[in-house]
Amino acid sequence: MSENIYLDDVTVGQKFVSAAEEMTQAEILAFAAKYDPQPFHLDHQAAKGTIFGGLAASGWHTAAFTMRLNVTSGPKFAGGIIGGGGEINWPMPTRPGDVLHAEYEVLEVTPSRSKPDRGMILLAINTVNQDGKIVQAAKMKLVRPKRGGGIA
Amino acid sequence: MSENIYLDDVTVGQKFVSAAEEMTQAEILAFAAKYDPQPFHLDHQAAKGTIFGGLAASGWHTAAFTMRLNVTSGPKFAGGIIGGGGEINWPMPTRPGDVLHAEYEVLEVTPSRSKPDRGMILLAINTVNQDGKIVQAAKMKLVRPKRGGGIA
Repeated sequence: MSENIYLDDVTVGQKFVSAAEEMTQAEILAFAAKYDPQPFHLDHQAAKGTIFGGLAASGWHTAAFTMRLNVTSGPKFAGGIIGGGGEINWPMPTRPGDVLHAEYEVLEVTPSRSKPDRGMILLAINTVNQDGKIVQAAKMKLVRPKRGGGIA
Repeated sequence: MSENIYLDDVTVGQKFVSAAEEMTQAEILAFAAKYDPQPFHLDHQAAKGTIFGGLAASGWHTAAFTMRLNVTSGPKFAGGIIGGGGEINWPMPTRPGDVLHAEYEVLEVTPSRSKPDRGMILLAINTVNQDGKIVQAAKMKLVRPKRGGGIA
């Protein structure tokens, strides 16, 4: 695949896969301490008595981790990966030691009516663990420049 | 408001407001380096030529920052803030030095049919800057224990 994917190059149904990376316990604890300091993200023992049944990563950590996968080994969109928003769901928690990768599928491609140099794509981004289970299912709207457009 | 809000205590239309906290440039750069290493989140000069027109926080950073506000000064839900997922949109970027707070409104309250000790609420969470502009608009589904339920 090209190193610089423009809107013109994107088609519905196109798929990509990222590299896999481990979510370590140290990273889970560090993220939780800074951004989601709740017992089930901070402490094994405290997490046992909660709905998680054991230490789990913050969903926002899984989201940020997935963004790192997007940038470092996801589709190489020209101008970068610029999200306008979307839907995000966490069907099950990410656990210490999980090895995650992201699977992408282009769901929609929409040229902008007002700005001819760009458009939007709707991209499904599933974050998948070592057992093939989806820990995060997202559908994100991305702003995409057209070839020759000035925004990249 | 109670320190321990159970599903039984939540009503549609209920509102809450968090404390305000500054998003520093140092925090923007540190988050981006780890989770969203793209030029417009890492470098003022490089960001000028992009759609952002200047350094901006990763949307996922605004999301994580909002989660910290939720936990440290948002509504004190019994059992914590456990998200199943939802919608998230970033109408405008968060900039270095922005002072953000979160505004909450309960949109729906739904007892679980299968699990009598819990239910879901749909919570609007708007992240608002010092100019009163919404930098993130989210609607999140939260799992909520009922009073006397065992999951907290």
